[in-house]
Amino acid sequence: MRELGFGSKNYKNTVRFINKDGSVNVERTGLGLFDNVDIYHWLISASRLHLFLVIFSGYIGVNILFAAIYYLIGAQNFGGVDMSTPYQQFMSLFFFSAQTITTLGYGHIYPVSNAAGVAAAAESLLGLLSFAIATGVLFGRFSRPKADLLYSKNILITPYENAYGLMFRISNKKQYELIESEANITMTMNNPETNKREFYNLNLEISKINYLALSWTIVHPIDENSPLYQLNIKDLEERDVEILILIKAINDTFSQAVYSRYSYKAHDFVKNAKFKALKQEATQKGKLKIAVNDIHHFDVLEEM
Amino acid sequence: MRELGFGSKNYKNTVRFINKDGSVNVERTGLGLFDNVDIYHWLISASRLHLFLVIFSGYIGVNILFAAIYYLIGAQNFGGVDMSTPYQQFMSLFFFSAQTITTLGYGHIYPVSNAAGVAAAAESLLGLLSFAIATGVLFGRFSRPKADLLYSKNILITPYENAYGLMFRISNKKQYELIESEANITMTMNNPETNKREFYNLNLEISKINYLALSWTIVHPIDENSPLYQLNIKDLEERDVEILILIKAINDTFSQAVYSRYSYKAHDFVKNAKFKALKQEATQKGKLKIAVNDIHHFDVLEEM
Amino acid sequence: MRELGFGSKNYKNTVRFINKDGSVNVERTGLGLFDNVDIYHWLISASRLHLFLVIFSGYIGVNILFAAIYYLIGAQNFGGVDMSTPYQQFMSLFFFSAQTITTLGYGHIYPVSNAAGVAAAAESLLGLLSFAIATGVLFGRFSRPKADLLYSKNILITPYENAYGLMFRISNKKQYELIESEANITMTMNNPETNKREFYNLNLEISKINYLALSWTIVHPIDENSPLYQLNIKDLEERDVEILILIKAINDTFSQAVYSRYSYKAHDFVKNAKFKALKQEATQKGKLKIAVNDIHHFDVLEEM
Amino acid sequence: MRELGFGSKNYKNTVRFINKDGSVNVERTGLGLFDNVDIYHWLISASRLHLFLVIFSGYIGVNILFAAIYYLIGAQNFGGVDMSTPYQQFMSLFFFSAQTITTLGYGHIYPVSNAAGVAAAAESLLGLLSFAIATGVLFGRFSRPKADLLYSKNILITPYENAYGLMFRISNKKQYELIESEANITMTMNNPETNKREFYNLNLEISKINYLALSWTIVHPIDENSPLYQLNIKDLEERDVEILILIKAINDTFSQAVYSRYSYKAHDFVKNAKFKALKQEATQKGKLKIAVNDIHHFDVLEEM
Repeated sequence: MRELGFGSKNYKNTVRFINKDGSVNVERTGLGLFDNVDIYHWLISASRLHLFLVIFSGYIGVNILFAAIYYLIGAQNFGGVDMSTPYQQFMSLFFFSAQTITTLGYGHIYPVSNAAGVAAAAESLLGLLSFAIATGVLFGRFSRPKADLLYSKNILITPYENAYGLMFRISNKKQYELIESEANITMTMNNPETNKREFYNLNLEISKINYLALSWTIVHPIDENSPLYQLNIKDLEERDVEILILIKAINDTFSQAVYSRYSYKAHDFVKNAKFKALKQEATQKGKLKIAVNDIHHFDVLEEM
Repeated sequence: MRELGFGSKNYKNTVRFINKDGSVNVERTGLGLFDNVDIYHWLISASRLHLFLVIFSGYIGVNILFAAIYYLIGAQNFGGVDMSTPYQQFMSLFFFSAQTITTLGYGHIYPVSNAAGVAAAAESLLGLLSFAIATGVLFGRFSRPKADLLYSKNILITPYENAYGLMFRISNKKQYELIESEANITMTMNNPETNKREFYNLNLEISKINYLALSWTIVHPIDENSPLYQLNIKDLEERDVEILILIKAINDTFSQAVYSRYSYKAHDFVKNAKFKALKQEATQKGKLKIAVNDIHHFDVLEEM
Repeated sequence: MRELGFGSKNYKNTVRFINKDGSVNVERTGLGLFDNVDIYHWLISASRLHLFLVIFSGYIGVNILFAAIYYLIGAQNFGGVDMSTPYQQFMSLFFFSAQTITTLGYGHIYPVSNAAGVAAAAESLLGLLSFAIATGVLFGRFSRPKADLLYSKNILITPYENAYGLMFRISNKKQYELIESEANITMTMNNPETNKREFYNLNLEISKINYLALSWTIVHPIDENSPLYQLNIKDLEERDVEILILIKAINDTFSQAVYSRYSYKAHDFVKNAKFKALKQEATQKGKLKIAVNDIHHFDVLEEM
Repeated sequence: MRELGFGSKNYKNTVRFINKDGSVNVERTGLGLFDNVDIYHWLISASRLHLFLVIFSGYIGVNILFAAIYYLIGAQNFGGVDMSTPYQQFMSLFFFSAQTITTLGYGHIYPVSNAAGVAAAAESLLGLLSFAIATGVLFGRFSRPKADLLYSKNILITPYENAYGLMFRISNKKQYELIESEANITMTMNNPETNKREFYNLNLEISKINYLALSWTIVHPIDENSPLYQLNIKDLEERDVEILILIKAINDTFSQAVYSRYSYKAHDFVKNAKFKALKQEATQKGKLKIAVNDIHHFDVLEEM
C-alpha cells in the first residue's frame, strides 16, 4: 500500500481517478471565482479552436470598444473619416482602430485633435502589449514538453511464467525520441473487508528502458505477492478497480522530463489473451520499420 | 540538528525566517547600489500594478524625451505638424514620437530633414528593442513555474497514536496538477541552555505523495525523538519557535519542479484540536469533488 | 543484458539502431497522416535552408492569396492602386497585402470600402499571429540545449592492463562548457546460439568526469566479464555488432541536461591501435590550448 | 584522486584551470573557422556593450545596403524622395529603408514601380525576422538562470578542532533566493614524485545547506586524510596548487539548477587567519539584516 494523494474513502458511485486523456478527475470547489484559475495555464492548455475564438472575438471586441471611444471623442477629430452617415463614421473609426492596434497605420485616417492623438497613442501601446502576450502564449503552447504516447486499448491477463501476467503496451506516436522511459503502475480498489479504498504499487518485470523506439510491453507478474492474485474480472468490477499509469521519459528534442498518465478500469481487462507481435522489419539500408497502429491487437487464447 | 543557512545566532528580538508569502526574510546590505538588484528578476516578480506603472510611465517619459529632441531639432523639420502655438507643436511631436516608437507610422506627420530622419530611425529601433524586452518580460512572468498552495491557517497538536502529532494541511489551489510532491519540515527555536538558535528536521509520517489531488495532511509524530516532545505552547513562544516548510512538486503543465515555502510561528499553534474532514464526494460520472476552502477548519477537543 | 527498447528480433539485413548524427533509426508507420508529426518539432529541427524556404514561400503564398481576395473585392475599393492594367492592379494589391501583413502600412494604397477594410483588418491580425509563431520558432531553435560533441572516427582495441581495452575519444566542439558528463555505453549483437539480438551494458573504467574541458578517452576493459572477450573483428562483423553511445552532460550556459548519441559498427573497429596524444600546452598566462581536430589520429601497433 | 577532465599533464608554466569569473581556461584549436562558435551562445553571453554595438552597426549596415539597392533600382521608382542631389536621394532612400525594416512605414516615401515594391516587401520580411531573433536573444539573455555569488577574496588556513581547516566564504549577491546549495571542492597540484598533476576531492564539514540566506563558510578539515596535511604555503606555490570550486544551487525564481565556479591559487592563501563575523541583526519586525560586503574580512592570528 502507498500514498497517492487520493485519500481512502470508499465512494458509493463508481469513481475514476485519472481520465483517458491523462487529466486528474478532480474538481476543487469552494474557492473564489478566479482563485483556482490560472489564465496562462488555460491559454496554453485550451484547444486550438477555443484559443482562436478568444483571440478573434477579443480583437473584434477591443476594436468596437475603441471605435466607440473615438466616436464619443467625435469623428471630426480624425482626418480621412467617411462622414456620410453615423454608421459609416463608426465603420471608418473601427478600421482606424484596427490599423492602430496592429500598428499598421496606413494613415489615410489619422488623429487630428489632441484627444484623438492621446487615445490612439494608448491604443497602439495596448496593441503592442497584447501582441507580446500572444507571442508568449503561442510560444508557451508549442514549446511545452510533451509525451504523446499511444496506449493499447485493453489491458490483458496473459499466461506468463507458469502463472499470469498483467500486460499493456505503449508506443511513442511522434517522430521525436523519448529516452530513459520509466513506468510507475499503481492499482486501486475497494477492500470489501475494511470498506476502504486501497492503493497498491504493482511490481514490474522491467520498469525502465533506454529508448522508447519501438513499442514497450509493460508486464506485472501476478504472483502471490500481487494484489491481483486469484482475483477474476468480476471481482475487479465489484471492487471498482483502476490501474493508474504514470510514464516518465526524457523528450530528446527539449532534453526535458515529460510525463504521461493513463488509466484502465475493469471493463478494459481481457483475460486469457496475448498481444500480437507488431510488424517489424529492417530496410536494405538498416532502418527499422514498425507498424505502431497494431499495438491494440491481441489474440484470445483457448482456456488453459 | 541540521544546517539551514540561517546561522545559530540567538537574536534579542523575535525573528521570522520565512514570511507567509514564502519569501526569505533577509535583507542583504553593504553592496553597491545596483549590485544586488537583478532588473529582470524585479520585472517578473513585481505586482501587476507596479509593472503597469513602469511600462506606462516609461512610455510617456520616452515620448516626452523624443518630443523634446524633435522640438530642439525644430518643428519645421517635420511635415504635417500643427504649427499654431509652441504647445501645439510639442503635442504634435509627442504624437509623432508615439507613432514612431510603436512603429505605427500613420505618416500624417513625417520627418523632412536629415536630422529628423535620423532621430526617427533611432527612435523606431529603440521601440522595437523595448518591445522585444517587454515580450520577454511578459513571457517570463507567466511561464514561470509556480506552485500555488493553500496552507491551513493553523498548525494543530492532535492526539495521535497514544501520543500527539503535529499536523497541518495543504491543498493545490489551481487547476493544473502537482505530482510527486515532497514535504521537508524544519523547526527552529532558541535553546535556553546554550543560548543558541537550533534547527531540527522533523520526521514525517509520509513525506511524499504521488498526486496532490485532494488535500494532504502532513503529520509529524511527537514522540520521544521529536524536539517538540513535552513542550507546551508557552514554551514554544518563549523559545521563539518557527516551523519552516518547503514543499517540492512537479508542475505537470510545465513538467518542471516547483517549490513552495511557508512558516508557522508559536501563535499559529492550537493544542488538542483536530482537522475536520473535507467535504469530498463523487459525481454520477465518477468525478471527485472536494471543497478546498474547508482546509482551515478544525474542532477543539475536550481535554484528554 | 539489459532492456534498451529495441526488442530482440534478429533481422536478416544488417541493421543500424543509432545513426551517426545521433537520431534513432526507426520509422513508425501505420498512423494517420498527421498523427506522428509535431509541426513545432519539425520547425525547430529542420535545416536552416528548409526553414527559410518554408517562411519565404509561405510569405509569397499568403500575399498572392490576399491579393486575389482584394482583386475579387475589386481594385476600385482601394485608393492609390495602379489601375492601368489588370496585371498592374494585381501587383498593386500584392504590394498592399505585403504592406498589410507585415503591419508596414505606408498608406499610399489604402482600403476605401468596408469590405476592403474588413479584409485588411483580418490580414493584419493574421500577420501579427504568424509573426508571433515565427518568433517562437526562432527562439525555440536557438535556445534548444545542445551538446555538440566530436567523436573519434574509429573505435580502437588497444592493449590495456595485460589485456585489451575498447577505446574511443570525444571532445566538446563548442566554446560553451559541458560539465558533469556521463557516458553510458551499450553493445548489441546477434547471438548465433539463440538467434536473438542481445544488448549488453559495457563497464567503463571511468564513466563520469566533471569538466569536458580537453578530450575524454572512454575505456571499456575487455576482461573475462566483457561480452567482447576473445571475439575478433570478423566475429563482430558476422554478428552485426553496434556500439550505442549515450553521453549526458550539463550545458553550462543553460544549466540544462543535454544528450548526445553516437554509434560504431564493425567496420569502425581497429585492433592493435592506440590513440595519439593530443597536442596540449599552456600559454605564458596559464591558459590551456588543445588541438581538438587531432582526436581521430591513432598509431597502429606491431602485433603483440 | 578523481577524474576532472583536465588530464594529468604537468605543465612547465603555472596554469590556471578555472578563471575568477568561473569560465574554464581552455582554448580549443584546430577546428574550422565557425565549427566551435555557436552564434546564439555568443549573443547571450556577450557584454551589453558588445551586443549594443552589434545591433546598432547591423541596423546601420542593413539600411545602407538597402538604400544602395533602392538607389540602383532608381530613386524615380519611389514617390516622395528628395531628388535635389544624389546625396539627398540616397539619404531619402536610407530613411525609407529604416521606415521599411522597422515596419514603421510613414508613407511619405513609398514604392511606385514593381521592382521597388518587391524590394520593400523583402526588406519588411527581413525586418520582422531579425526582430524575432532579437526578441529571442534578449529573452534568452535575461531568462538565463544565474547564480551571482560573492566569494571571499582569500582562502584561509584557520586553527580548527585541534588542527587546521581550509575555509572560504560565499554569499548570494542578488535578492532572489538560492536554495539547496551544494559545494563540490577539488584541489589540484603537481606531484613532485610522479611529475604528474593530480586532482583530489576535498571533504567538507558540511557540503549542503537549505538556504543560502546569509553567508556560508565552507570548511575542509586538514586532517591526516587531507592532501593538504603538513603542507605549507610555499609548498603549495611550488606545486602550482589550484582549488577548484563548483557550487550548485536552485534559483528559486526559475526553479532551476544553477552553477557557479571559482578558483583560488597559492597566492590567495592566508595561514593562521580567521574570518570576522558578519554584522548580522534582526529588526523590530523580525527581519534579518546582514552586511554582505564584510565577507572578505579576516583577522590574522598570533602564531599558535
